[in-house]
Amino acid sequence: MKLRMGMIGGGEGSLIGPVHRMAARLDGLTELVSGAFSSDPDVSVATGIKEGLHSSRIYDTWQEMITRESQLPENTRPHFLAIVTPNHLHYGPARMALEAGFHVLCDKPLCISVAEAIDLYKTVERTGRLFCLTHNYTGYPMVKRAREMVLGGELGNIRKIVVEYFQGWLSSPVETTGNRQASWRADPKKAGIAGTMADIGTHAFNLAEYVSGLEVAALSADLHSIGPGRVLDDDGNVFLLFDKGVCGTLLASQVAIGEENNLSVRIYGDKGGIAWRQMEPNSLTVMWPDRPVQIYRAGTSFYDAGLTGPMHTRIPAGHPEGFIEAFANLYRNFGMHIIALNEGRSHDIMADYPGIYEGVRGMKFLEAVVASGLNGSARTAI
Amino acid sequence: MKLRMGMIGGGEGSLIGPVHRMAARLDGLTELVSGAFSSDPDVSVATGIKEGLHSSRIYDTWQEMITRESQLPENTRPHFLAIVTPNHLHYGPARMALEAGFHVLCDKPLCISVAEAIDLYKTVERTGRLFCLTHNYTGYPMVKRAREMVLGGELGNIRKIVVEYFQGWLSSPVETTGNRQASWRADPKKAGIAGTMADIGTHAFNLAEYVSGLEVAALSADLHSIGPGRVLDDDGNVFLLFDKGVCGTLLASQVAIGEENNLSVRIYGDKGGIAWRQMEPNSLTVMWPDRPVQIYRAGTSFYDAGLTGPMHTRIPAGHPEGFIEAFANLYRNFGMHIIALNEGRSHDIMADYPGIYEGVRGMKFLEAVVASGLNGSARTAI
Amino acid sequence: MKLRMGMIGGGEGSLIGPVHRMAARLDGLTELVSGAFSSDPDVSVATGIKEGLHSSRIYDTWQEMITRESQLPENTRPHFLAIVTPNHLHYGPARMALEAGFHVLCDKPLCISVAEAIDLYKTVERTGRLFCLTHNYTGYPMVKRAREMVLGGELGNIRKIVVEYFQGWLSSPVETTGNRQASWRADPKKAGIAGTMADIGTHAFNLAEYVSGLEVAALSADLHSIGPGRVLDDDGNVFLLFDKGVCGTLLASQVAIGEENNLSVRIYGDKGGIAWRQMEPNSLTVMWPDRPVQIYRAGTSFYDAGLTGPMHTRIPAGHPEGFIEAFANLYRNFGMHIIALNEGRSHDIMADYPGIYEGVRGMKFLEAVVASGLNGSARTAI
Amino acid sequence: MKLRMGMIGGGEGSLIGPVHRMAARLDGLTELVSGAFSSDPDVSVATGIKEGLHSSRIYDTWQEMITRESQLPENTRPHFLAIVTPNHLHYGPARMALEAGFHVLCDKPLCISVAEAIDLYKTVERTGRLFCLTHNYTGYPMVKRAREMVLGGELGNIRKIVVEYFQGWLSSPVETTGNRQASWRADPKKAGIAGTMADIGTHAFNLAEYVSGLEVAALSADLHSIGPGRVLDDDGNVFLLFDKGVCGTLLASQVAIGEENNLSVRIYGDKGGIAWRQMEPNSLTVMWPDRPVQIYRAGTSFYDAGLTGPMHTRIPAGHPEGFIEAFANLYRNFGMHIIALNEGRSHDIMADYPGIYEGVRGMKFLEAVVASGLNGSARTAI
Repeated sequence: MKLRMGMIGGGEGSLIGPVHRMAARLDGLTELVSGAFSSDPDVSVATGIKEGLHSSRIYDTWQEMITRESQLPENTRPHFLAIVTPNHLHYGPARMALEAGFHVLCDKPLCISVAEAIDLYKTVERTGRLFCLTHNYTGYPMVKRAREMVLGGELGNIRKIVVEYFQGWLSSPVETTGNRQASWRADPKKAGIAGTMADIGTHAFNLAEYVSGLEVAALSADLHSIGPGRVLDDDGNVFLLFDKGVCGTLLASQVAIGEENNLSVRIYGDKGGIAWRQMEPNSLTVMWPDRPVQIYRAGTSFYDAGLTGPMHTRIPAGHPEGFIEAFANLYRNFGMHIIALNEGRSHDIMADYPGIYEGVRGMKFLEAVVASGLNGSARTAI
Repeated sequence: MKLRMGMIGGGEGSLIGPVHRMAARLDGLTELVSGAFSSDPDVSVATGIKEGLHSSRIYDTWQEMITRESQLPENTRPHFLAIVTPNHLHYGPARMALEAGFHVLCDKPLCISVAEAIDLYKTVERTGRLFCLTHNYTGYPMVKRAREMVLGGELGNIRKIVVEYFQGWLSSPVETTGNRQASWRADPKKAGIAGTMADIGTHAFNLAEYVSGLEVAALSADLHSIGPGRVLDDDGNVFLLFDKGVCGTLLASQVAIGEENNLSVRIYGDKGGIAWRQMEPNSLTVMWPDRPVQIYRAGTSFYDAGLTGPMHTRIPAGHPEGFIEAFANLYRNFGMHIIALNEGRSHDIMADYPGIYEGVRGMKFLEAVVASGLNGSARTAI
Repeated sequence: MKLRMGMIGGGEGSLIGPVHRMAARLDGLTELVSGAFSSDPDVSVATGIKEGLHSSRIYDTWQEMITRESQLPENTRPHFLAIVTPNHLHYGPARMALEAGFHVLCDKPLCISVAEAIDLYKTVERTGRLFCLTHNYTGYPMVKRAREMVLGGELGNIRKIVVEYFQGWLSSPVETTGNRQASWRADPKKAGIAGTMADIGTHAFNLAEYVSGLEVAALSADLHSIGPGRVLDDDGNVFLLFDKGVCGTLLASQVAIGEENNLSVRIYGDKGGIAWRQMEPNSLTVMWPDRPVQIYRAGTSFYDAGLTGPMHTRIPAGHPEGFIEAFANLYRNFGMHIIALNEGRSHDIMADYPGIYEGVRGMKFLEAVVASGLNGSARTAI
Repeated sequence: MKLRMGMIGGGEGSLIGPVHRMAARLDGLTELVSGAFSSDPDVSVATGIKEGLHSSRIYDTWQEMITRESQLPENTRPHFLAIVTPNHLHYGPARMALEAGFHVLCDKPLCISVAEAIDLYKTVERTGRLFCLTHNYTGYPMVKRAREMVLGGELGNIRKIVVEYFQGWLSSPVETTGNRQASWRADPKKAGIAGTMADIGTHAFNLAEYVSGLEVAALSADLHSIGPGRVLDDDGNVFLLFDKGVCGTLLASQVAIGEENNLSVRIYGDKGGIAWRQMEPNSLTVMWPDRPVQIYRAGTSFYDAGLTGPMHTRIPAGHPEGFIEAFANLYRNFGMHIIALNEGRSHDIMADYPGIYEGVRGMKFLEAVVASGLNGSARTAI
């Protein structure tokens, strides 16, 4: 069966809209059927037509879209809506879509406050609808392999977690020169209480919690607004205290000039350590005190069938899969969950994806980071 | 507009069939509408149904498919057929499809003899149909950037070309233990006169000619059948003599145990040199005698609009694109050519893709390699 | 001329003693002539004999050595003494040696308190003797090249400094199982107020200040004692605030299991950024927002003669130089300074080496780190 | 005990002379006592004085030096002579030194013909003197580890050997612009019958035979003189046929512009494969078909005491050792052999070094390569 998807946001000029559409298409599981792609109706129509949609399924506003699409017959209306708007426009559409009976896939961060997040969490619980939050980096096979090694105890007791996410694209004040991605991210009304920490810090935070299976209990943050005239943080560093006394650090910057999309995670236990880096995502380095370093590679055939890694690759090792494929893994796992739900089957827990809980965690992280940053890096519970 | 594609071969259990379908889907330009996916009708039907095809568009044989599909009305019948069968089943379907008026996209190597290749070449010329041969490695943006640097003279006069393609998957006799990919490749009736040289040597050969803009004039080959009981070569090394006296080497092996898909090309001129490696495809290393090494990266925003590189990436630098995206670049460029032809426009020459000429070149390479190998590595014109 | 060196500490079983001796020998400039190699006279004698010393120049105690060696005729007595003892035995020998008229080369950290450090600083000033502190990582040619790029303004205004030093050798409680290096480092009486921060944190701190040309004004520290029963820190993370409001981080750990000697520094300005990593020391990565990444390589011939880099390499690029060669650069630069002083010439400022000032900085860093760590990561001036 | 060394060649302006002297000094085992450093007596004297030699031990000619030094009392005269002259000046001094009772350490290639090589071989046998040929790349600990893995059967039956040695420094005609290293290497009177193949091809050949434990039985060569006006080869490629039918390739070039000193070896068996690259010499990559890639690292503490690797490192893993240290391993192993011989002990076979046999092999390789190159790449026995 094919899943039908409607999309809110992601019109022409959007960066992430096309990524969502490619991710949805890649595995042939999902078909775009409707959209309110922009607050500008002309842009919405242009995008929808380019995507081959019938004009009756292209809307001027997301409110109209949710209302009308929810009234379509079951074999026509979307199985889920994808929300790919700026941060301040996640909560409203998500809540309305859930109430209207749609499953929801939403870009990160979940929203702009813990209060909104908890409300969405309760709405998901109450409606029984499925929710996917696109912390897409968890879709990489080697990230899943890393998590599996940690949870399986291969590294022993975890002691230290180091995540880092460096970009350089905000080194110059691109938000003042017409860069759409930059301008809304630099605007507290659209981005929320945080800049870089919301945009990429939450990815790093999610990755740390996902791979380690641990949760951050408290943190101390040191936030900076380095770009001239910038209100929100564009650089920040955080001491992390996880459950069980495990310590860690999270460094994030969008003014690390020349850096592309340098996200990495390292986890050290008392038996071994791992390192993964997004820009070479098909390798996972495993370090031991008493044996040679190992490099696990995505797509090798010798993993057990039960492992999570191999089910998230499409081609053999050495044929690099990348960002879009990892993103598509979220779409596919979410789609398979919808299908399983529709067919009354239980979903394969190996086909996991980040959801509403991770969204609440991210918002709690953000509020704690900002509070600590404003309070002289005071240790702040999360 | 969306292009309609029919597929010959690529049924369940095929490795390359799904790759073609993902590549076709990625950019939303092409839709699969019909297929004869296997010589086993049950497999064909199962694949077609899984792909969501109507049963009337799933065929038992490619002959039947070409015949029937060519009689469909113009707004229904495929714009092109994709041929993803074993080597010995390229010529027949390709020729019949061309004659029936279809554009053709065909897996490599083109066929199993120079004679077949020339016949196909003439058929393409005569019918005026478009032809794409999936030497997919030329679809990587950094390969295109490399070619651009060479042809633009940035490296000076070219002196030396080194290509290498090492895999390890035929290290054990997998062709005797039920591995479908291995068994037909090891069978001269299906693979043709060469094994590894046909399967991956032609890719390396094509890459060398593509990036350098030069053609091989003569060669000396040293072929080996290392796996027990193997008839065709599974390892081979070739001295290359290009036009203008440029020398080079081509090394290919499928018994380089532990290697995944290690294709690389290095080109040295009298001003500078370049190195590209498929397993880390988003980087292009440029070496100079008088300046620091440079690493060009796919997806950076500072290339001129006129360069070929940027139009072949989908997301910014640091978000790795891989094998499927490069493969999709061929599909997209070929598709854009079909559309331009249909609309009476000229095709953007930047949106290039390998075609029937490259197919003839590959077959000439193969016949020369085999002849030289059988003749004590004697220098053999190509 | 050859320089004569006496050595205090570094007897058999020492890790760093042999490194000092290799570094001294490499360039043929310095000859070991005397030593008090251990608090155990038998070890001292055994080491001295193995090193080919005359028995009259091997001493039971450093006090005796300094007294007697200072009374030798000028053409016999050492030009300088190298102090390679545990931390608590730096101050005493260094002070006595300076007072006795010797130049001093001392292992890091300088001593165990700021008070001691300042006293040594004043002693150096008063005696006019030269002092070298072996922050050996500044001896790498690519570190010098990095500093040169930063100070020359190539990166623009500096914004962010990231240093990191991860080792794993204290992951298990090796200090309880006879490992000499570990046991004194874990003992506050010998190591001082800090463990990992003293042992490797000061290296990272020195590297950050050296390459950036900036000084840390304040910091917030988060220290951990992760190994069971450990009193001193074996892991720590620090927010750094440099002059001119430049921010940074310093991460150091000796329980990052599997890590070897993973020291790195990254510096980001508003024009470009650099990254250097000790485990591949002959490369310096330079990142730009508007041009390809550059890799500077040690030993290339195309740098200007005036640059600091080339004078610190011995062989052409591609012939890797390593840890010992970088260490030897300190010995050689210090030795050349002694010779220049003796000959009444001014010393080439390109042939720089860390000295007593850097030693004071390191102790101030350590006291601030420990104070902040004990005070809930409170921002602490340095 | 300290060994005394005399040196022939290696005067000021020499590249390799200083390397030999650093390698000899590093471990404190060997002392330079005499020399005839140049055919220009002034240069010889200047070099000797700079090295701190007494003027009576500095000679105008190597003949005079060997004659006079051999008459010195046993506690004064050198234990061995190091010959670091251009190729055509290896045979004469080596033979005379052996006859005079000296052990000999000689730079590569051994000489300029197989006839000379065999004569030297017989002279070594007859005189019972020790002989070391500085194929220094075999001194790297990870090369020794590679050999150990191959000979220990860890890779299974060897199938394929790939060596490559690319440099770029002869890309421009530096031999015509005063570059001393280039000018003698380009001159058949001084370099012998081959250029690049003699200079670096023999290193690659030696590395292949050393690591594999196999010998080349026959070869086919394709030689090129690419630089304008160059008489000898500056680029060449060779098909290798080893004992037991193992195949391989050797590629060498000094016009691979931008390449520094890119020597690598890869060996594939039927169980596993290895790859080592000189420019990152402290890592050895081991590839398996059924397990993750392994990276062995020099200086790790967990190898068995019996393995060859650890005895050839000086500092722990992560503190990079390089070219000079590997070179010094030859000096030290050769020195230890001399000492063992003098003391009537047997030499530790783990402390191996290349000798006269390897010199003969290299000359046979060169003559076969040149013969095949002149004969249309005809297969030529070696």
